[in-house]
Amino acid sequence: MKNCVIAQSGGPTSVINASVMGLLRRNNETRVYDKVLGGINGIEGILQEDFVDLSLLTEEEIHAVTHTPSAALGSCRYKLKDAVTSKEEYERLFQIFEKHDIQAFFYAGGNDSQDTVRKLAAYAKDHGIAMNFIGIPKTVDNDLQVIDHAPGFGSAARYIAVSVLESFLDGLVYTNNGIFITETMGRDAGWLAASGALATYNGRRCADIVLLPEIPFEEEKFLKKVEEIYKTKNQVYIVASEGVRLPDGSFLAATKAHAHDSFGHAQLGGAGNALKGLIVDAGITSRVKVLELSTLQRSAFHLVSPVDLEEAGKLGAQALDLAAAGETGKVSILVRTADEPYTVEYTSTDAANIANHVKYMPRDMVTEDGMNITEEALRYFRPLTGELPVYRVLHHFHDEKK
Amino acid sequence: MKNCVIAQSGGPTSVINASVMGLLRRNNETRVYDKVLGGINGIEGILQEDFVDLSLLTEEEIHAVTHTPSAALGSCRYKLKDAVTSKEEYERLFQIFEKHDIQAFFYAGGNDSQDTVRKLAAYAKDHGIAMNFIGIPKTVDNDLQVIDHAPGFGSAARYIAVSVLESFLDGLVYTNNGIFITETMGRDAGWLAASGALATYNGRRCADIVLLPEIPFEEEKFLKKVEEIYKTKNQVYIVASEGVRLPDGSFLAATKAHAHDSFGHAQLGGAGNALKGLIVDAGITSRVKVLELSTLQRSAFHLVSPVDLEEAGKLGAQALDLAAAGETGKVSILVRTADEPYTVEYTSTDAANIANHVKYMPRDMVTEDGMNITEEALRYFRPLTGELPVYRVLHHFHDEKK
Repeated sequence: MKNCVIAQSGGPTSVINASVMGLLRRNNETRVYDKVLGGINGIEGILQEDFVDLSLLTEEEIHAVTHTPSAALGSCRYKLKDAVTSKEEYERLFQIFEKHDIQAFFYAGGNDSQDTVRKLAAYAKDHGIAMNFIGIPKTVDNDLQVIDHAPGFGSAARYIAVSVLESFLDGLVYTNNGIFITETMGRDAGWLAASGALATYNGRRCADIVLLPEIPFEEEKFLKKVEEIYKTKNQVYIVASEGVRLPDGSFLAATKAHAHDSFGHAQLGGAGNALKGLIVDAGITSRVKVLELSTLQRSAFHLVSPVDLEEAGKLGAQALDLAAAGETGKVSILVRTADEPYTVEYTSTDAANIANHVKYMPRDMVTEDGMNITEEALRYFRPLTGELPVYRVLHHFHDEKK
Repeated sequence: MKNCVIAQSGGPTSVINASVMGLLRRNNETRVYDKVLGGINGIEGILQEDFVDLSLLTEEEIHAVTHTPSAALGSCRYKLKDAVTSKEEYERLFQIFEKHDIQAFFYAGGNDSQDTVRKLAAYAKDHGIAMNFIGIPKTVDNDLQVIDHAPGFGSAARYIAVSVLESFLDGLVYTNNGIFITETMGRDAGWLAASGALATYNGRRCADIVLLPEIPFEEEKFLKKVEEIYKTKNQVYIVASEGVRLPDGSFLAATKAHAHDSFGHAQLGGAGNALKGLIVDAGITSRVKVLELSTLQRSAFHLVSPVDLEEAGKLGAQALDLAAAGETGKVSILVRTADEPYTVEYTSTDAANIANHVKYMPRDMVTEDGMNITEEALRYFRPLTGELPVYRVLHHFHDEKK
């Protein structure tokens, strides 16, 4: 017998299951491995020999799992230590691999997971074990190096852009409107918040202001801009990353909202509520709504990006091909070859190039005042979400009346 | 010339524009009126003679507006007082009607709007003015009397059910999961929160607990149930209406979360955050996430319910027919004739039957312990949302393992 195992790690996405099923489908075609085992709850479950035999899935089941968000095999937050510190764990893991005739290990996850791929591949080499370790990238945050964009990001970006558009339309129906703040994930990198800039109505951006973790937040400058827009348009739409930081590097959410919360629940207010507090305290208006998209942005499969779904599947299939070709310690990736029409090439990179690195938004994607995304930068984002809905309202816009 | 005017009032929905376009399409077929004018921002804009001529819209534009959420004509929160108090306003309004050859007035809105229809119809009769005043129902809250369900509700219910399902799947991927609370709109009536009970995975309800404004919240009983479920399943999913009330009638949100908030922002924490506070304080777990669906539940057209969209259009068309038949002071409604297969009949009722009444969830739709919806009651909800997505995960469920 010659088997392989695939497992998922880290936070869920809408398309991580498509990667697993993409690999399974490829093996069903090529029969490189006798069985494709699914490791339940990542490394954690594999250490318990908790497997399901994916090779038994019918075509109908493969289709259903491909179109299911979250992590169909379960996930873990387990970070494998180095082989010296966790010697017994490595030995146990490789005993399990041997016991189940596992000759290849595939891990779908973010940079921590790719670090696991790197470590296991190195351990196998050092111990003369002929096994293949291949990573499949995944993260809604889009903060992986080398790869053009991470699978999962396009769908999250689509969810954010559509939610911004629809809540923007909701917020402009009165003669006296208020301020709307949508808070996205992305603690360190602003890619998700930046996706909010994709929402347009009638050729104009819905989001007046986009705040990213990469650009230090300047309270005075921010409040001045909010006030100006509010006076002109009678409505302000703000998209803010949960990771918006003050110039000293501390989180806005931690220093503002939480400092005033005697309840003792550190997660009560995020960046959005902190911004609301600033706006209300500055006397601009008390009509401020905050929307925290929470886990829906990473699990709303009903708004999956078709291109994201397809790419996730292909990256899974390519991972199998890489192992079959004898590669190890690699990650299955794609690079973009053109924006319009959008084209990509599938290739691979050393897991070490992705492990423990973070890809930030480059400064030149951000407008000079640091509070929005440049039009040029949106060319990067647009192909990833698929087409967004086009809506049509009849009342005059506040800003068209001026 | 013989014209009519239609306007929108109150909070937006995903299908209120479909009602307006349904009426317009009907007039394009029947030519009852020379022009269908759209009143911008409800009564507020009509008092300013702020109209658009909807009769000029192309078929393509009608289609686009039908498929746009929010209120395409803008809205208002204006409540018309009685004809004695606001004599001048009534006179001004009827002068404007006369000036623009308006012989019928259609108002799409909730119970406040239907009160406006009732008052204007009565005023016209008292003053011998031959005009028709017809209401078109609308509200995501579903709290209108007489009508089986309000247009807008089915789409909001669909958004809530899908969001509960997807966030539920997101929340069960780890071996150590937490508690998830989704807060819905519905300050007085629990219909929206109850919709969360529609979400099922693998034949089981996702929501372990559903809290409604109609059932007084008992802290001890609630915490006991949360703890029991958490111990058994390692995950608890709670859907709570923003209007959850304590036995003394005060809002849970106002008395719990806000009392502890020295920041001074009354809207910072809703019912969801108040429940989180109780759970954390009781020491059950600190892993509690709160999702407030905010305005997306009423404006997420991308998850519109097909049946809701169709019914909203027909109710608009029927409103035109009612006016053409000489009716006034009426509301265009539907009554259900069967659950399965789902059938309705279109009819009308006096605006007085809807104006200023609230339809609460009946006690017999709620389980005996007051913390969920009966299976029988879901037969009322199911036809309104359209089919929900069916997902498939592979890891064992915590509760299937027992």
